[in-house]
Amino acid sequence: MALVFPFSAIVGQDEIKLALLIAAVDASVGGVLAFGDRGTGKSTAVRALAQLLPKMKVVVGCPYSCDPARPAPGCPHCRGKTEAELKSRQVPVPVVDLPLGATEDRVVGALDLERALTQGVKAFEPGLLARAHRGFLYIDEANLLEDHLVDLLLDVAASGENVVEREGLSIRHPAKFVLVGTGNPEEGELRPQLLDRFGLSVEVRTPEDLATRIEVVRRRDAFERDPEAFIAKWKKEDDKLRRKILSARERVSSVKVPDATLESAAKLCMGLGTDGLRGELTLIRAARALAAFDGDASVGDKHLKRVAPSALRHRLRRNPLDEAGSTVRVERALAEHFAA
Amino acid sequence: MALVFPFSAIVGQDEIKLALLIAAVDASVGGVLAFGDRGTGKSTAVRALAQLLPKMKVVVGCPYSCDPARPAPGCPHCRGKTEAELKSRQVPVPVVDLPLGATEDRVVGALDLERALTQGVKAFEPGLLARAHRGFLYIDEANLLEDHLVDLLLDVAASGENVVEREGLSIRHPAKFVLVGTGNPEEGELRPQLLDRFGLSVEVRTPEDLATRIEVVRRRDAFERDPEAFIAKWKKEDDKLRRKILSARERVSSVKVPDATLESAAKLCMGLGTDGLRGELTLIRAARALAAFDGDASVGDKHLKRVAPSALRHRLRRNPLDEAGSTVRVERALAEHFAA
Amino acid sequence: MALVFPFSAIVGQDEIKLALLIAAVDASVGGVLAFGDRGTGKSTAVRALAQLLPKMKVVVGCPYSCDPARPAPGCPHCRGKTEAELKSRQVPVPVVDLPLGATEDRVVGALDLERALTQGVKAFEPGLLARAHRGFLYIDEANLLEDHLVDLLLDVAASGENVVEREGLSIRHPAKFVLVGTGNPEEGELRPQLLDRFGLSVEVRTPEDLATRIEVVRRRDAFERDPEAFIAKWKKEDDKLRRKILSARERVSSVKVPDATLESAAKLCMGLGTDGLRGELTLIRAARALAAFDGDASVGDKHLKRVAPSALRHRLRRNPLDEAGSTVRVERALAEHFAA
Amino acid sequence: MALVFPFSAIVGQDEIKLALLIAAVDASVGGVLAFGDRGTGKSTAVRALAQLLPKMKVVVGCPYSCDPARPAPGCPHCRGKTEAELKSRQVPVPVVDLPLGATEDRVVGALDLERALTQGVKAFEPGLLARAHRGFLYIDEANLLEDHLVDLLLDVAASGENVVEREGLSIRHPAKFVLVGTGNPEEGELRPQLLDRFGLSVEVRTPEDLATRIEVVRRRDAFERDPEAFIAKWKKEDDKLRRKILSARERVSSVKVPDATLESAAKLCMGLGTDGLRGELTLIRAARALAAFDGDASVGDKHLKRVAPSALRHRLRRNPLDEAGSTVRVERALAEHFAA
Amino acid sequence: MALVFPFSAIVGQDEIKLALLIAAVDASVGGVLAFGDRGTGKSTAVRALAQLLPKMKVVVGCPYSCDPARPAPGCPHCRGKTEAELKSRQVPVPVVDLPLGATEDRVVGALDLERALTQGVKAFEPGLLARAHRGFLYIDEANLLEDHLVDLLLDVAASGENVVEREGLSIRHPAKFVLVGTGNPEEGELRPQLLDRFGLSVEVRTPEDLATRIEVVRRRDAFERDPEAFIAKWKKEDDKLRRKILSARERVSSVKVPDATLESAAKLCMGLGTDGLRGELTLIRAARALAAFDGDASVGDKHLKRVAPSALRHRLRRNPLDEAGSTVRVERALAEHFAA
Amino acid sequence: MALVFPFSAIVGQDEIKLALLIAAVDASVGGVLAFGDRGTGKSTAVRALAQLLPKMKVVVGCPYSCDPARPAPGCPHCRGKTEAELKSRQVPVPVVDLPLGATEDRVVGALDLERALTQGVKAFEPGLLARAHRGFLYIDEANLLEDHLVDLLLDVAASGENVVEREGLSIRHPAKFVLVGTGNPEEGELRPQLLDRFGLSVEVRTPEDLATRIEVVRRRDAFERDPEAFIAKWKKEDDKLRRKILSARERVSSVKVPDATLESAAKLCMGLGTDGLRGELTLIRAARALAAFDGDASVGDKHLKRVAPSALRHRLRRNPLDEAGSTVRVERALAEHFAA
Repeated sequence: MALVFPFSAIVGQDEIKLALLIAAVDASVGGVLAFGDRGTGKSTAVRALAQLLPKMKVVVGCPYSCDPARPAPGCPHCRGKTEAELKSRQVPVPVVDLPLGATEDRVVGALDLERALTQGVKAFEPGLLARAHRGFLYIDEANLLEDHLVDLLLDVAASGENVVEREGLSIRHPAKFVLVGTGNPEEGELRPQLLDRFGLSVEVRTPEDLATRIEVVRRRDAFERDPEAFIAKWKKEDDKLRRKILSARERVSSVKVPDATLESAAKLCMGLGTDGLRGELTLIRAARALAAFDGDASVGDKHLKRVAPSALRHRLRRNPLDEAGSTVRVERALAEHFAA
Repeated sequence: MALVFPFSAIVGQDEIKLALLIAAVDASVGGVLAFGDRGTGKSTAVRALAQLLPKMKVVVGCPYSCDPARPAPGCPHCRGKTEAELKSRQVPVPVVDLPLGATEDRVVGALDLERALTQGVKAFEPGLLARAHRGFLYIDEANLLEDHLVDLLLDVAASGENVVEREGLSIRHPAKFVLVGTGNPEEGELRPQLLDRFGLSVEVRTPEDLATRIEVVRRRDAFERDPEAFIAKWKKEDDKLRRKILSARERVSSVKVPDATLESAAKLCMGLGTDGLRGELTLIRAARALAAFDGDASVGDKHLKRVAPSALRHRLRRNPLDEAGSTVRVERALAEHFAA
Repeated sequence: MALVFPFSAIVGQDEIKLALLIAAVDASVGGVLAFGDRGTGKSTAVRALAQLLPKMKVVVGCPYSCDPARPAPGCPHCRGKTEAELKSRQVPVPVVDLPLGATEDRVVGALDLERALTQGVKAFEPGLLARAHRGFLYIDEANLLEDHLVDLLLDVAASGENVVEREGLSIRHPAKFVLVGTGNPEEGELRPQLLDRFGLSVEVRTPEDLATRIEVVRRRDAFERDPEAFIAKWKKEDDKLRRKILSARERVSSVKVPDATLESAAKLCMGLGTDGLRGELTLIRAARALAAFDGDASVGDKHLKRVAPSALRHRLRRNPLDEAGSTVRVERALAEHFAA
Repeated sequence: MALVFPFSAIVGQDEIKLALLIAAVDASVGGVLAFGDRGTGKSTAVRALAQLLPKMKVVVGCPYSCDPARPAPGCPHCRGKTEAELKSRQVPVPVVDLPLGATEDRVVGALDLERALTQGVKAFEPGLLARAHRGFLYIDEANLLEDHLVDLLLDVAASGENVVEREGLSIRHPAKFVLVGTGNPEEGELRPQLLDRFGLSVEVRTPEDLATRIEVVRRRDAFERDPEAFIAKWKKEDDKLRRKILSARERVSSVKVPDATLESAAKLCMGLGTDGLRGELTLIRAARALAAFDGDASVGDKHLKRVAPSALRHRLRRNPLDEAGSTVRVERALAEHFAA
Repeated sequence: MALVFPFSAIVGQDEIKLALLIAAVDASVGGVLAFGDRGTGKSTAVRALAQLLPKMKVVVGCPYSCDPARPAPGCPHCRGKTEAELKSRQVPVPVVDLPLGATEDRVVGALDLERALTQGVKAFEPGLLARAHRGFLYIDEANLLEDHLVDLLLDVAASGENVVEREGLSIRHPAKFVLVGTGNPEEGELRPQLLDRFGLSVEVRTPEDLATRIEVVRRRDAFERDPEAFIAKWKKEDDKLRRKILSARERVSSVKVPDATLESAAKLCMGLGTDGLRGELTLIRAARALAAFDGDASVGDKHLKRVAPSALRHRLRRNPLDEAGSTVRVERALAEHFAA
Repeated sequence: MALVFPFSAIVGQDEIKLALLIAAVDASVGGVLAFGDRGTGKSTAVRALAQLLPKMKVVVGCPYSCDPARPAPGCPHCRGKTEAELKSRQVPVPVVDLPLGATEDRVVGALDLERALTQGVKAFEPGLLARAHRGFLYIDEANLLEDHLVDLLLDVAASGENVVEREGLSIRHPAKFVLVGTGNPEEGELRPQLLDRFGLSVEVRTPEDLATRIEVVRRRDAFERDPEAFIAKWKKEDDKLRRKILSARERVSSVKVPDATLESAAKLCMGLGTDGLRGELTLIRAARALAAFDGDASVGDKHLKRVAPSALRHRLRRNPLDEAGSTVRVERALAEHFAA
């Protein structure tokens, strides 16, 4: 209900904005993890992006917000109904907040106690994962969540499906969403196993030049005094972005990945010594989404270069002989590779 | 029911009194955190301020104490009713104490067990957050509360809305209040992440001159022997203050913030190296509320200077090369900035 | 039911006896904390004092033992009834023991499960705090209680009211009592924050001269062989003490506190560096109660001197340059102050 | 039901046998704590003593096994009935084992769930304390129990009454028993606060001469092959002991305690530096019970000497300058005192 | 429902593929434990193998998926019915994932709450172990599971039967499956006791040559763009493998184990100092399954050599004088033994 | 249901086999604790012994498997019925496994929830202890169980009776069984207090000669290929053993224990410094059972020598001056004693 700050009006913060746009084009790149300073508007960026996206059509009464044109194959509500049988309405793209104290049962869903007690039936009451379907799930300070909950969220985000085995319930329902987590490295880190499962990671810093800082406060102040006017002023920019995202979504599956690009990606990852092959796979997917967003027909070095830091920096092993931060190490590898 | 010590009769303690007055003018500056010695009347100050404020009109029967003229948009009780349909009455501004042993369910609200057991329906029973709406929520020794509860309180205070996801309930209701926490640095600290989310922080010290101490004990003694007479004696001062607050509330949104002030705020924060931009934003808001209280038309350096210690001292990074306390560091930055 | 050892027959132990008598005259001095050796009759002293006090009139059926002449304003049972409507009877002053394993629900009161299950109504079942109203609440080894429970007890003792926020109940009822806690410094200490909230603290030692020890055992033995005879023998002494307490209670509010006394109290506290102003406030109150007990019309140095150790010794900061115990430090400050 | 080894047939173990006999004569000496080696028959001694005592008369149907001639004043079952109205039967003296995993509700008693569920009434279901009334409560390895449970048991044993404040119940019933605890110093110690509350403490050692050990095994073997014959053989000895206990019980209250004995007791305790006065009180009581058992008319040095180790060894402060064990220290003090 | 990557199209990863094939031929070799890098397709390999196996016939309505030709002797559903009475259908071989947060009740099965509440009967609701019968149970990061759960799974996998003792239920049902666990040595290890109970253990590494890495990404990319076409392309290879497995299953029980092979196995294990005799037993079983897969009539050195690393490397004691990894130690022992 | 490996076919492992046979002859020697390597067939030996014993007659419908000829005196099912009234059937001797995750309620038995909920009565549902009556209770890795559960099991095993004090139940039923625990010294030890309560302890090692190891694998392999044939082959040996056990059971109570043997046992224990007298008692009992098994009429040195290691090695105090293992120390003491 509250009015949302326009995505286009966000000053700076290019890396998180790019990561969110890539996830908006192709959610299969995996979740976005934003590490960095307090009070830098990470939450604002997510809400702004969701607001920017066009409203989505949902089946009326479907607890999983299915698209009437393509209901999820496993949806227990829409299964077996034709599009004509499914009434629909328009709703904003959901941004679901996972509060720190949320219990696992509210996240994954649970037995509907009211119906159990009054009607004696074992019905499922969907949780936050169901509500986040087709939108965003936002976790502030993901490093304070219990590991097994983060793991569970990453599993569901990766598979697009929530499998519930609790209290005698055995349910599965669609749950495709972009998982966005934030964290503060000073408060403890995620386990490497979890880090590796996020698609992209970005670093967010407090801007350090005066003009930017003043501009941020000025825009914030303008928005708070008269939000409608402020939103109206930025509407054109937001509309433009929205059209770019929609067109990229349509074109992304036809963007080509040349062999030279595959080789570049593999060489980069080998040079950096990332474990496993998730590095290459994410790098290719994110570069392809970027190419689609930029309107390019095939993936090239320029795309790899822009997305490599976000796709790889959280997959590096600690190297005792190289004290440089992981961003620096990725950038050095890029420089070496593309110079060669 | 108990008679309350008059705000005007409080001896000294200027910083906490100013912070509370600013929060009374514009609650959006965020909560107030008071650190310092035991037995210095922090609780007395909060109760005195609440008592000072004019009674407020509430909708009869509304569990969230809505203002009949402007019921909260999301209020499940008042939604869709006209002002004429809503009966109202006058009540004092609430000061809700959060007892240390309070459970999360009593804070945020929970399933109404009586109705669940007798009528089989899943109704919501509002908690302390609902009761604090439009008033104050007071936490003694906030550093002894569990972090996630403090976090939750700050979330609600910031958004003005309480979102409940528990026991199959999914409720949201208005909960705008000024959060006032106290703490004792000897008993462990709040995490920097939490500190940063309080708007203002003040330090409270035991007065160190004899005359003040005698005066405090004398007034306290006088109040305890004959509270009615004591209150009557200070009524005029309290009335004056009340009028100033009311007039400041009306004018605050039209107080101007010149570009030079924005720049001063940003430079101060950059100089102190505060993380993120909450420093600037709070500084501007608190200075504006002070200007309104002082009857000034625009925010100037004198306002910034008075509120900067409260707005910034809890946002500084520990600086290993500068062993000075954070109050000293803020004051030094003020001196340097405004001398330049 | 059991016969109680007479207060007058207690050998030695002057400090705890004085502190209990002061609390019996003016309960607003706050609780009494007795630290010291095992097996020194701390519990005996409390029970003996309660036995000494005259029986009190209570409203028949009132779960909070209201005085029919002055029912507590907030009493849910007596509210709105005239004295004529309230039947009364005489009962001994209660001494309620808080067993170490007592759960919070039995202390503060809780939902009456029987009525909830059988009648489906949410009724309140008063706890130990209600039962202690107008009497004593005794905690053996208070340092073994959880801090938050001690905190809660001190809150209630200070406010004279028990506020319950549990299980959907929202009750407040009168609970004025003298909190008496004992502790053993070898078993861990109370947090300074809690210490400071007790009004008086006393040290209890095993007597070290042979005659006293023999006398204690002899009297105990005599009491155990024939309690009725022993009690009869000391009745006169006990009656005298009772009359002194009753007369002191009537006169205490008219005892004067000269400015010179206020100044002495403040100087003492400043010299000792007690945090906050609870030191001064308690010192004045305890000295006034003592003056009333002694039949004096105004508070003077002699009263301050006698109560200062009990009122201040638990409020001193640890001073690394002064290894003397806190009793010694208070006595030294008294000597310096009154010599000057 | 099982046949019990005769008390008289126990080889050696004089100290624990004496302590148990003293407690059987005058339970007010307090519980018995037996520290020492594994497998030395501590449990056997307790069961043998109980078996030795004459059967006791109990009121039929009374859950607290009241004596029909003197029902406990507070007994909720027998209160207000005449002896004629109370049917009685003979039962053996109970020895109740407190299993290590016993929960507090089974120890003190709890809400009778069956009646609560089926009849909707809140009835009390007595626990192990009720069952131990007029007998023994045996705790193997008391040092492994939680402190608060030991504390609770000592409270009840001392007061002879079980006060229950749980689950909305507020019950008190008679519970007079001799508490016997065993422990192994290698597995952690009881807190000094708890040690001090046991009346007597004894040390139990594995016998170290061959003849004794062979005799123990031989008797045990004989008992196991033919328990009836073995018991018959020792019946006369057991009968003699039983008569001595019964006669001592009758005479104990008329045994004199001369002033010289009081002084000896006090001097011994002062010399040993025991905290508080429980040392003297227990020493006098145990010596009086021994005098009664021995058929003496007044308490003398010989009685003090025999009971002093059991009455005092667990009340000594650790003395860093005296590395001798506490038994040695008590014996040295006895030698010095009675030599002087 | 989702399409599965073909087993034959997996690039490299020979050791895990061999271990899974051996388990597919003779499940009695015990579970497979795969330790190694993140993101190396361990889960893909298991799912691919299951997909490769022919569909299996199950009894319609049997909660344990019994084979209608040979229902498990203890199956509570099929017991006492003839094959003709049992209707059957074809289903894919199950791969059941054990989610990290799964509770023991969902794993082993539990009381059916719905039937308990509505019909008052105590019925069993089968858990994941029942669902895994005749297939695979896959645990990602087994080292993060609680030891007792891993123990339980190994017990069931070894006995082929799930014995449930919970909530008043006493059930046993067939549960034969191949347990596949993965783990990351950086995140803590399994206890040696548990390691030893897995039949085979394999090490999985990220491929380190460029061509392989590019080929992995290329195949993955091809599969994701058009899974049907990709699967069709590899169908022939998969069919060939399936035929080899089926034929090996039929022949395995007739493969001979010569005495020389038994001796080789025992010498190898003695040389390596494995505890107990599980090493020999597994080595023989795995070699026999491999011989059957290879179409050989008896087990020889070549089979022992290929399976020895997987069968033994997790059974070595840490040798402080030999810092080589366990794989190296097994290979060295093989070289020495077969050279001699 | 599964076929069991024959006891006679077990290769080596003489010490555990002897201990189990002794317990089968006279269960009063107490439980058997088997410490040692993994995978050495400890569980196999127990199951084999149980299988070897003749089927036992039980009362049909008795939840405690009473012997119709001698129903347990305290059996709530059979009490008061004549043998004629009790129908009987033959069942195998039970071997009950205590799973690591078993809860105390399933071990000791608990309230029957089904009957409580549907009929409102408080009935007892027997647990694993009831099921183990007259058989074996097997705990794998007893050192991983919680101490209080091991303690409880040893209590019941020693008394032959299960006393339940839980949930308002107060039940006792027969529970005579041989407790067999295994453990691995590398995973933490049992407390000495618990060790001492096991009757016998044995050490199990992996055989270290090639021929034995090959023979073990060969027999295991033969058994797995054709269990019926293998069992048939060893039937004669098993029958012989069974007859020896039965005859020993009949004769054990008439075997004589000469004084010289008692003296030898006591001297051995004194020489070794075992605490208490459980050493002697167990040594005598085990030697008597062995004499009965061997067909001897009285216990002599040869019997003591064979059982002393198992009866004493777990009762030694750690001797800082003697670093030899406890087995060596027992053997040295035997050599010295019988040489003298």
